Amino acid sequence: MNKIEHIGIAVSNLEAASSIYQKLLNTNVYKVEQVASEFVKTAFLQSGPNKVELLEGTSPDSAISKFIDKKGEGVHHIAFEVDDIKAEMERLKGEGFILLNDKPKPGADNKLVCFLHPKTANGVLIELCQERDNNYDQ
Amino acid sequence: MNKIEHIGIAVSNLEAASSIYQKLLNTNVYKVEQVASEFVKTAFLQSGPNKVELLEGTSPDSAISKFIDKKGEGVHHIAFEVDDIKAEMERLKGEGFILLNDKPKPGADNKLVCFLHPKTANGVLIELCQERDNNYDQ
Repeated sequence: MNKIEHIGIAVSNLEAASSIYQKLLNTNVYKVEQVASEFVKTAFLQSGPNKVELLEGTSPDSAISKFIDKKGEGVHHIAFEVDDIKAEMERLKGEGFILLNDKPKPGADNKLVCFLHPKTANGVLIELCQERDNNYDQ
Repeated sequence: MNKIEHIGIAVSNLEAASSIYQKLLNTNVYKVEQVASEFVKTAFLQSGPNKVELLEGTSPDSAISKFIDKKGEGVHHIAFEVDDIKAEMERLKGEGFILLNDKPKPGADNKLVCFLHPKTANGVLIELCQERDNNYDQ
């Protein structure tokens, strides 16, 4: 794993949270993106080599809305950048981690992603992400 | 803020969690450290420019043990590296963030640290940390 690509933070109000994190990180949101398939809208801020992704659910059924209902706002997932997501998924499956998707799926910010079940990583929802290549063979 | 210096993960058993995160990150724990003043023992793993800090409470009264009692294992805090912690503390205070300590205090991994109250950062406990300089004037 190359680095922490981003931390994902579940928030109730994307606009209000963006204002707070802009002050915290002393930088502007550089991208706002809707991921319709996941029922979320997201805002990204950069901190050196890392990003903060703020996530607001756009439906009560979204994973983010359910997370907030259960636990309140806070860190939702930690994403690690990998070079070869399929190889990492195989490796981690072999190590006993539970993958939440069998194949890499499209995520925000032009990434292919896979999530690992929190119960196999001390309560932390881990995301693997790889920059998407237009020639990538899914 | 320069980067995510580390993410702190509260765990019940440092040895078991170290084994899991070594597999996850495909790297070895490079340092184990006890922070007596905070009643924690910690293990660090590197991921490129970032670190993962696993934290186990050494007393039922430690913040980590209380966190686990309340919320279970999981992400405890996100630490951002800063060049001048005093200046950042002043700036963030001015922006309305609540600082949990008035002065920088010694943390693990040879750092000076300050925490911000989660209620001013959408439920996330934020740590500022600066590499400790032996000539630093506290």
